Order: sequence, then C-alpha cells, then structure tokens
Amino acid sequence: MPDESLALQTTVIAVDAMGGDYAPLEIVTGAAQATLETTIRVILVGDEPKISSILAKTEHNRQQITIQHTDQVIENDDVPKLAVQQKPRASMLLAAQLCGEGLAHGMVSAGNTGAYILSAAKYIPRLPGVRKTAIATVYPTQNAQQRKDHFALLLDIGANIHCGVEDLIQFAIMGKIYASDVKGIPNPTIALLNMGKEAHKGGDILSRTYATLKTLPDIGFIGNIEGNDIMKGLADVVITEGYVGNIVMKTIEGIADTLKHIGKYAFKHRFLWMLGLIALSGGLKELKQITDYSEYGGAPLLGFREIVIKAHGRSRAKAIKNAIKVAAKTHRDGVCTKIAREIARCTVNSTPSE
Amino acid sequence: MPDESLALQTTVIAVDAMGGDYAPLEIVTGAAQATLETTIRVILVGDEPKISSILAKTEHNRQQITIQHTDQVIENDDVPKLAVQQKPRASMLLAAQLCGEGLAHGMVSAGNTGAYILSAAKYIPRLPGVRKTAIATVYPTQNAQQRKDHFALLLDIGANIHCGVEDLIQFAIMGKIYASDVKGIPNPTIALLNMGKEAHKGGDILSRTYATLKTLPDIGFIGNIEGNDIMKGLADVVITEGYVGNIVMKTIEGIADTLKHIGKYAFKHRFLWMLGLIALSGGLKELKQITDYSEYGGAPLLGFREIVIKAHGRSRAKAIKNAIKVAAKTHRDGVCTKIAREIARCTVNSTPSE
Repeated sequence: MPDESLALQTTVIAVDAMGGDYAPLEIVTGAAQATLETTIRVILVGDEPKISSILAKTEHNRQQITIQHTDQVIENDDVPKLAVQQKPRASMLLAAQLCGEGLAHGMVSAGNTGAYILSAAKYIPRLPGVRKTAIATVYPTQNAQQRKDHFALLLDIGANIHCGVEDLIQFAIMGKIYASDVKGIPNPTIALLNMGKEAHKGGDILSRTYATLKTLPDIGFIGNIEGNDIMKGLADVVITEGYVGNIVMKTIEGIADTLKHIGKYAFKHRFLWMLGLIALSGGLKELKQITDYSEYGGAPLLGFREIVIKAHGRSRAKAIKNAIKVAAKTHRDGVCTKIAREIARCTVNSTPSE
Repeated sequence: MPDESLALQTTVIAVDAMGGDYAPLEIVTGAAQATLETTIRVILVGDEPKISSILAKTEHNRQQITIQHTDQVIENDDVPKLAVQQKPRASMLLAAQLCGEGLAHGMVSAGNTGAYILSAAKYIPRLPGVRKTAIATVYPTQNAQQRKDHFALLLDIGANIHCGVEDLIQFAIMGKIYASDVKGIPNPTIALLNMGKEAHKGGDILSRTYATLKTLPDIGFIGNIEGNDIMKGLADVVITEGYVGNIVMKTIEGIADTLKHIGKYAFKHRFLWMLGLIALSGGLKELKQITDYSEYGGAPLLGFREIVIKAHGRSRAKAIKNAIKVAAKTHRDGVCTKIAREIARCTVNSTPSE
C-alpha cells in the first residue's frame, strides 16, 4: 500500500498495469518513463512478479513507483457488469478504490472501457451536482497542420446512451473547462452535434438544449454543427449523447483503418504507388495523426471527484506516459473542483428544462 | 404535359432540372445523355427557355424529352417547410405531382433535401403498411478494391429524426430489397448500427429491434455493427435512425474534405510530396472514390409508391444520368411493389413491438 503522507505531498496516479492490448509491458514502461520525466508518483496495480520483472529491465525512478499486487484482471472481451461483480480485486477496480479512498489523485487504464466506467462509478463519487459522467475524446482537427496544438473535444462517446437537456448542458460545461485548463485552448467554443445548423433541428431534446445553451452567457456556444464540421475544428468542444458520439468516433477510426488498408493494397500492387508512398510518407504521417487516436493518449472520464483517464486499448508506452502526465496536470490544476463550481453556478442561472 | 399513352408504354422519369449546385446545365446534360443511352423518357421540370437553350447545344433524343415549364425554384438555403408552402409550383413539387398523378414512374432531384422529402410526401402516397419513409445512401466499401461493384446501403440518413422498433425493421426490409434488386447484391446482409456488438447494447429501442430482427428468418440479420465496421463492408445494409445516419454520413464526407485539404497543403509545401502525389494519383483516386459520394449518383427515398431518387447536391451530368437509370430500373423491377408485399408479410409474422 502507498505511503499516505507522501500521497499528500506529490501527485499520485494509480495505473492499471494489466489493461490494454500491450499490457503489462507497454503500460509499465510508460509509467517508468513518466517517473524519469516528472515528479509524479505512480501506483502500478497488477501482477507484481510480472511488473517487477519489467521494471528490473527498464530505467525508472524507484522512489516514485509503488506496486499494488493483484492477480485478477478484467479482459477486453469480458462483459463489463459481470466482470466487475465476479472480479472484485481486478486491477482497474483496485486502482479506482485507491482514488476513492484518497490514496491516488487520478487513475489511468487502457483496459475494457465499460468495466472501467463501472469501476470508477463504484469507488469514486460523482462531483456534487453532476447528473451523468461523460467520456471525452481528444482529437486533432484540420487546423492541426497550421497550429500544431489544435485539438478538439467530443463528448460523450459512450459513458451514456441517451441524454436529456440538463445532461448535455453539463457536458458542455465539463468539456469547456477541460479544453481550456488541460488542453490549453483559450476561450473554447462549444457546439451541439446535430443534423442541421438551424436551432429547431434534431427533435425536442436538441432544440431545447440549443435554446438553453444560448441563455448561458459565458459558455461560448456557437450553435449546431454537422458531421462534416467535426474534423474541420469549427468548434473546440462538440457535445452529443453517448450513442451518437461512440458511433461517430468509431466511424472516424474506421476510416483510418480503410486508409491503412488502401495503403497496403497500393503497396502490394503497384511499384509506382510504392514509390509515391515513400515520397509521400511525410504527408501520410500527418494524415495518420489526424485519424489515429492511439497517438493522443487518453480520453478523460469527466464528472468524478478525481480524474479518470481512459487510454486507448492500443496504447504503447508513450501514450501511457502522456495519459499519466495529463491525469497529474488535471489534478494539480484543480479541474474537477472547477467543474463542480461551474455546474453549481450554471444550475442556479439556467432554468431547469426537465 | 407528357403524353399519357406514351407514359404507359415506357418508363418515364420526372427530373427537377433546377435543383443542385450545377443546375440546370449539368442536370439537363445528364438527362440528355440518358436519352441517348436508354429508352427512358424524361420530363424536365423547370425554366423552359433555359432548358431549351441547353438542349439546343446538347445531343439528345428528342422523342424522349418533354419539358414542363415553371419559374419557381426552391433554393438550397430555403427553409424546406416554408419553401414548399410559398412556392407551390416549384420544379421539385411539380415533379412529385407528376409521380403522384401517375404521369411519371419515378423522380430525380439534386436540390434541397428537406424540401424534396416534403414534396414527395405531399404528392406521392406511402406504400400500404409503410410507417415512415427513409433515405438510403449507397456507399462503396473497403471491399470495393477487390470487387469493383461492392456497395453498401446506410439508412435512414435524415428523412426522420428518431425511430421506433417497427420503423427500423421496415428500414431493414426496404433496404434489403433495394440492395438485392437494384444494386444486385445477392442475399444482402443486414446490420443494426450500435455502440457495441452485444444484443443488449444501445438502450431499449435498439435491443428490442435486435430481438425482433432475430425472429425474422429471411432477413439476413447479422447483428449489431459499430462505427468502424461501416466502411469495411461487414454488412450490405446498415440500419439506423435518421439523426445518427445523417451525422455518420456527413462525418465520412467531412473526412474526404480533410483528405483533400491535406493533399492541397502537401502540394503547396513540399516538392517531394508533390512528386509523391503524382506517383500516387491512382491510389488517391481510389481513396477519393471510397469517400466521395458525388461519384455514386443518387440516394433512394424508400417507402413511397413511386421511386424517389435524391442526387447529391454536387452532382454533375454523369451522376444525374446514373440516377435517372437507377430510378427507371427500380420502376421496371417493381421494387416498390415488392417492398409493400414484404412489409405486409413481415408485419403479419413479427410480434408488434410498440
């Protein structure tokens, strides 16, 4: 168990060492790298012998790594609800418990998304006033060519299925604070994902959400955007219900796969294409960056008292290291506290719509 | 006005000559080409002087073209509901009226989608038993590299917002018949677009739709697919509510734009990339075909007594010609009649879920 007094001095991040396609090797390696580059303390939760054996071969700062052993692991193809019940000592559940008990200030996992959400919900209280937590994906936009750091946020991408007016407004508030404080986007703009630009589009819930967001002076609401505007970066924060966000995110990922497939096909079949691909590799790399989520570390689960970062299942060490850094920054900047404050303020100001 | 006796002998397609970004020039040219390649009769609805002046300069078969004059046009940025009320003699409304009165067997427009749906609904009766009409987009899948003709259908992409269980099942039936009879896909497979593969995913309506589709023996239901499976061609017909289908379709279109943007950027900034682009042009063309909807002619509006084809707003002559051919084929093959028959049969067989 970690030393509580130390936990109060520095930022402590609990890391599920067993979750993800390349666990535990890449997860432990990423955590080790984080201890070399920062003062963050990491609690690696998982199979102690395996973790120790990786650490023995990996440069790291010993003072900043603790291992919490467990031999239970939730696999990617486990049914989330059952897994959380049947494996109460699974690595991601123990990581969540550390956060819930105040022994860690945030957590990172690249494991089973559904089980991870349930793990967080089991041990970490929601922030006061928050109706639903949401997962936000951070993605680079077309503007990324010009401004290297141009990211945007899409939420919710699957913590929920359908959402009401108040839920969507809270997503806007949470997304805005995360975009400005963690991603460093000044005065982020907010948009509602819809099937048309007009205020009345998309049915009752969306049109009422539109009307309510218009009444919030500081939110930076620019109106509805459509599917083709997502990658353009027209808005810094795009709000939608989990069902739609999930499908959109995976559609974009699917297109990245299609591109790779075409690349391989071209590579196999035409010598001229092969030469072209080599010459174009710089351009193709940019293209890959725009569509490959594994380059961008983690997706925050917003609305909990502590920050919960879901790293992509295909995360390598670098992505895990970045996710740990983002979790620590989120804690140090008091982002969760700010979210609670803004939600309290906006709930007072806005007319309850449901 | 068209000659009714002729209309009964050959297939007659009403074409909105004034709708689309390149109307009337490309619309009239496409219709003219159709008359050279087929026996289809076309009624061009729109500004007679403009249409005649284009025809005067374009090779066509005079016997197969009639012009129905009107000077009212619904523009792309018109509000659909208002436009249909305020411009009762608009070209797309008159084209729909020709279908409704039995003077045409189908219609094509590249104009304002919302107004087009309302125009069709105003004059053309729904097929008996059909609860909601749906727009289906036809898109090429990853398999298109191997099999040149591999298309898939996604519906609804925006004729409706939200849908119930029975609506989605009817979309499956309509999509299946269109895919097999018009697109020539043998025994098309059907999938439900969802946020996970499991039967219980996506909330009440989707899980009940899943369960009901499983009880229909001939439908070819393969289960849920996720966003990243759409472009892979895992299913020949993908079913979803209009709100989601619309966003997904536009997201894919947006990525095509992003690719073009990157291509231009590369072209401007690096000589080596430029060389690469030239060498790769064959591969990029395939990529463009996979994402550029304007190459694939029309999206059918299914559920009406006559076939209604929405051509892409950016359609050129070739796309219009293809849309006219597809409309004629749909009529000749009796697709609408088959849809009505299948819907009657499945409604008897399946337990009403709502």
